[in-house]
Amino acid sequence: MTTKNAPSTTTATTSQERAARIMERCDRLARESAEAGKITRLYGTPELRAARDLLDSWMRAAGMTTRTDQIGNLTGRYGADPAVANPKTLIIGGHWDSVRDAGRYDGTLGVLSGIAAVEGLHNAGARLDAAIEVMAFADEEGVRFHTALLGSSPVAGGFDPAWLTMTDDAGITLGEAIRAFGGDPEAIPGDARGPDDLLGFIEVHIEQGPVLQERDVPVGVVTGITGSARAEIVFSGMAGHAGTIPMSSRRDALTGSAEFILAVERVGRSVEGLVATVGKLDAEPGASNVVAGRTAQTLDLRHPDPGVRDRAVAELKAVVDEIGSRRSLEWTWHDSPCFAETPSDPALTGTLREAIEHEGIPVVELFSGAGHDAVTMAAITPVTMLFVRCKDGISHNPAESITVEDVAVALAVLDRFAASVAATAPAVAS
Amino acid sequence: MTTKNAPSTTTATTSQERAARIMERCDRLARESAEAGKITRLYGTPELRAARDLLDSWMRAAGMTTRTDQIGNLTGRYGADPAVANPKTLIIGGHWDSVRDAGRYDGTLGVLSGIAAVEGLHNAGARLDAAIEVMAFADEEGVRFHTALLGSSPVAGGFDPAWLTMTDDAGITLGEAIRAFGGDPEAIPGDARGPDDLLGFIEVHIEQGPVLQERDVPVGVVTGITGSARAEIVFSGMAGHAGTIPMSSRRDALTGSAEFILAVERVGRSVEGLVATVGKLDAEPGASNVVAGRTAQTLDLRHPDPGVRDRAVAELKAVVDEIGSRRSLEWTWHDSPCFAETPSDPALTGTLREAIEHEGIPVVELFSGAGHDAVTMAAITPVTMLFVRCKDGISHNPAESITVEDVAVALAVLDRFAASVAATAPAVAS
Repeated sequence: MTTKNAPSTTTATTSQERAARIMERCDRLARESAEAGKITRLYGTPELRAARDLLDSWMRAAGMTTRTDQIGNLTGRYGADPAVANPKTLIIGGHWDSVRDAGRYDGTLGVLSGIAAVEGLHNAGARLDAAIEVMAFADEEGVRFHTALLGSSPVAGGFDPAWLTMTDDAGITLGEAIRAFGGDPEAIPGDARGPDDLLGFIEVHIEQGPVLQERDVPVGVVTGITGSARAEIVFSGMAGHAGTIPMSSRRDALTGSAEFILAVERVGRSVEGLVATVGKLDAEPGASNVVAGRTAQTLDLRHPDPGVRDRAVAELKAVVDEIGSRRSLEWTWHDSPCFAETPSDPALTGTLREAIEHEGIPVVELFSGAGHDAVTMAAITPVTMLFVRCKDGISHNPAESITVEDVAVALAVLDRFAASVAATAPAVAS
Repeated sequence: MTTKNAPSTTTATTSQERAARIMERCDRLARESAEAGKITRLYGTPELRAARDLLDSWMRAAGMTTRTDQIGNLTGRYGADPAVANPKTLIIGGHWDSVRDAGRYDGTLGVLSGIAAVEGLHNAGARLDAAIEVMAFADEEGVRFHTALLGSSPVAGGFDPAWLTMTDDAGITLGEAIRAFGGDPEAIPGDARGPDDLLGFIEVHIEQGPVLQERDVPVGVVTGITGSARAEIVFSGMAGHAGTIPMSSRRDALTGSAEFILAVERVGRSVEGLVATVGKLDAEPGASNVVAGRTAQTLDLRHPDPGVRDRAVAELKAVVDEIGSRRSLEWTWHDSPCFAETPSDPALTGTLREAIEHEGIPVVELFSGAGHDAVTMAAITPVTMLFVRCKDGISHNPAESITVEDVAVALAVLDRFAASVAATAPAVAS
């Protein structure tokens, strides 16, 4: 099957203009936030809905038909050349939720690159031999429910109904949050996609590391995504008056946390490539003149080798137990949903390499230390990712920064990748 | 001057009944809270106002005239025998604000004991040769503005107008909070009391330590109150993605905090009688998959010897500086208002000892590790305190527990103390 209406060749100038539009749209989305002057868009919030309304309008302006699934993901579909019977589908994805006080490119760059790719076809009056779907996932970061990749999980058939009873910090369950966001939790299984009509999944994402900057190239291919272990640990001691309880009589949960945080750092430093983090800590009752009676903290631990992860987790559990015994603190260790390491699909990644080479750029291979929706999507279709150079490797931070020139290169690579994938696509078996 | 209308002798049964009423009122006040099922009453809140309305009604029912000053303290005055020209005044005090998730007796026991003492006189149709004022202070704990003894400071002329610009965690200034609570910050100096008409200040308070329980006595005299140093320390590093920033490149503010918390504990343990606490810690942005870029924590450090406090603070400042240098964290150390050590007045405390002995109870001397409004009130009048046994020394905790029998003893001691002080009182020089 050949491409019937190939897109007109994208000139350098046009790529720059389209990239500038992506940058403007990132700026526009940044204004939809829970906090003025900061970017914070958690799952199920009014600001997430407002940002989705913008994405929806941009998708439809690019000639896509849009649909929203039960958990609230937004998908825009741009059909294949009508001459192709039973065409297959390439998914270009991203997410538009964020961490607290986030940057403006993590996640949104993937969605907006997908929209821009379709926009290029639509403006040229062109269609490929495959459909393109741009999928915007409603929760990738997992900040609200401490569980990442919630948006793509139903699509990939990996949504565990037990998750519906998970609660956010206000005690609201995920099931309640889905309903409040307009969905029906019980209908989630119906959103699962089968593999048969899919060609693959690609996401364009900022690197979140310094390698592309160091190598002085705008983009790189992702050969795989690391695996993670996550947990919430609670220490319980005895709250009491900071002026009247002798040091020797204390059961101070916060000093237990301090030892745990340093142990996590020590374990993280002990193995090459391992990262281990306590990012969230709540101390109760949280007054300057009261000894803390309870602390809750998170553990996030990542390494591509599951054996390394398992040994690190076992070591930290032993540390928690030792701290608890020595300090007379009770403790709980609750494993949170984690993700396994995910290699990129070799064939799809090969097509991506060729598209990069066509731009005259040396192919730099990267490994992702961050999780991405490709982890879940890999269950139903081949996945790959294109990373874009970001300043000093900073992400999850307002200082996230990319250049319009690099985005233009990424877009040119994505255009060519999509066209190549579609051109070699067999039709769905009928 | 002799007492004209001496109170009828309080029988054991009557003391028990009056003590039971105090316990009921503690229970009733506990229901005025920011959180259902917990006791949390911070300065300037609707729940503080609702609790004050209850105190006001109980004061007036006990024959007192009431007034509210600019910061919101409530004072009930029960006049002296009209035959006494220019009578002096004994103040019985306490506070009705609380820490977060507090017990029900800390502070309120002082106010309600004062009301009960006046109630005893009022029901007997008796007046002393001195007036009694029951002062309920609107902020002793200092949770909201991280500054203790805010309520009694204006009364004792120790209110620093610079405090009006201090902010709470929501960014509201103390000046704004005072206005919202119905007061005029600029009129605060007018609430200062002079020493001339005052006989002294006494507060009945739970011990917040285990000594009375160990010695098996219901009450004890306080010979003095420890001194404190307080500060807020902020570490600033760089927030970033927990999966992509290598351990070696991190500027993790929370690991700096962990080292500081353990240093505070080590210093606190290094000197007999020293207590040092980090009770409040906020880590931002506070997500499981983001390295913390900023932490704010409090230090509360107490010892009766100012030299010990100063050396401990200097050591901890050096620790913070060392942590900051080694971890590439910026830091600030902001000293918060603290209080100096305050010995009880020997003469007033002697009268209190006699009242305890009259009940057939051995006199146990205690030193207070907690600050109290007596610290500020000592600037204008002799002060003393009566401590009441509390279960296992637990305070600032929902498990705070005292017995009605012990409260009955405290009330009998307070009745006799007030009568004795009033009986020996000279009139105000006219």
